[in-house]
Amino acid sequence: MCVPGCEEAVLKRLSRRGLFKGFGAVTAAGFAATAVPGVAAAQSTARSFSKVVDLTHTMSPDFPTFFGVPGIEMQKQFDFKKDGFNLYWWRIIEHAGTHMDAPIHFSEAGATIDKIAADQLVAPLAVIDITAKAAADVDALVTVADIEAWEKAHGKLPDNCVVAMNSGWDKHVTSPKFMGKDAGGVLHFPGFSPEAAEFLIKNRTVRGMAVDSASLDHGPSKDFKVHYMWLPSGRFGLECVANLGAVPPVGATIVVGQPKVKDATGGPSRILALV
Amino acid sequence: MCVPGCEEAVLKRLSRRGLFKGFGAVTAAGFAATAVPGVAAAQSTARSFSKVVDLTHTMSPDFPTFFGVPGIEMQKQFDFKKDGFNLYWWRIIEHAGTHMDAPIHFSEAGATIDKIAADQLVAPLAVIDITAKAAADVDALVTVADIEAWEKAHGKLPDNCVVAMNSGWDKHVTSPKFMGKDAGGVLHFPGFSPEAAEFLIKNRTVRGMAVDSASLDHGPSKDFKVHYMWLPSGRFGLECVANLGAVPPVGATIVVGQPKVKDATGGPSRILALV
Repeated sequence: MCVPGCEEAVLKRLSRRGLFKGFGAVTAAGFAATAVPGVAAAQSTARSFSKVVDLTHTMSPDFPTFFGVPGIEMQKQFDFKKDGFNLYWWRIIEHAGTHMDAPIHFSEAGATIDKIAADQLVAPLAVIDITAKAAADVDALVTVADIEAWEKAHGKLPDNCVVAMNSGWDKHVTSPKFMGKDAGGVLHFPGFSPEAAEFLIKNRTVRGMAVDSASLDHGPSKDFKVHYMWLPSGRFGLECVANLGAVPPVGATIVVGQPKVKDATGGPSRILALV
Repeated sequence: MCVPGCEEAVLKRLSRRGLFKGFGAVTAAGFAATAVPGVAAAQSTARSFSKVVDLTHTMSPDFPTFFGVPGIEMQKQFDFKKDGFNLYWWRIIEHAGTHMDAPIHFSEAGATIDKIAADQLVAPLAVIDITAKAAADVDALVTVADIEAWEKAHGKLPDNCVVAMNSGWDKHVTSPKFMGKDAGGVLHFPGFSPEAAEFLIKNRTVRGMAVDSASLDHGPSKDFKVHYMWLPSGRFGLECVANLGAVPPVGATIVVGQPKVKDATGGPSRILALV
């Protein structure tokens, strides 16, 4: 895979040396379209990008959580005027804001967050758009049919990818609709169906699952089936992801900047897409 | 910038067409060393990689800090055997472990960490190796001469880059040598010189500065001149960075996964290099 413009650079340089006389019919675009198959295959892990998209919500004590208490409390320990510099101490919940679920979060002996190798944190990103369905049904699920429809449009899910649900729920993050608690205390927001999780585990090579809602399982779930299936399988989850509507369905690279904390079960993460 | 192997692909394809007869002396490496300046500039935003290198230390209560107390304390709030899932609450110091200093850390009104745009967090990485000097002098400094020597070998510092000091100090992280406190309570470890910081601010376009020691200023500094010059200028700092010896002096891309916490002056960060 060549960086856009790279071929032009090579061609131009050769042209300067006079090697391209009478070779005007071969354009850079022509090169890109007819790369040498063997060489291209050897470079299949190379990825390129020219833009960064932030997939992270700003974390604050106001961010909605499952726990009925703020996900972060900040205590100013040093102040510029008094001490010459500013510094806070934070008390945070591992699973609040835009964050990662490590396998150990829902298993007895799965990987803690510090044991997930760095190269697992950089992956092809596949975004499944269920915004229309979720606008009509707050408990909408990503189904096997949604995955199949995505693959019909964009090809098979890339190996070692992160599969993301874009339900449009990031837009509700400052409203009670984000958690969707009803009069009976039941939550309502979209998530993955257990069948879709099972399909991805058994039939595809997927590293992680991402949702723009508060949980991999949709709001009314009582058994957290997706969590109990997905995380113990050694895969990670990403929750409260933002701006998935700003990246293409296929072709972007996700970078998960999770904190490398010993024994942690998850953690607030800076998640970026390289497009 | 070309993906490794891309030039080979182009050359191979041309060679197949018989255009390279008698051109054996020009190797792919030769191309990389002599890119067309104009074209390279036009492509400055497109970047590529095929490998991920972790530049982050694992954080734990044992990690050395400035504050005489652990940089993180973890409290297990839920346990898998009892509750069906694992979850900790953390109490952390913003400036401990591998972390970012935001401009507000040493200024009255600089940017907080959440105000640093995502595209500032992905940058060309330039690594200045002072391991030999630091092995002979625990208080070694990156000087203007070191920057000039780097540029003589590798070309001008890339625009909008992060400049990193590789002093080899990451290897001392589990030893008292990392902070280097002497009998008089003075710390000893390498850092940037104020003159080098001033040179970078005035003469180059640099986004951030990274060190593999505990501070941008070297250990014995009493006035934190580099902090007070660098951070109020709107640039960020990265401290306790690991594995800088595993990335090339030029050509890698640094990704700073800092936590997007409202009002924060810094934060534990997952720092990766894309090579």
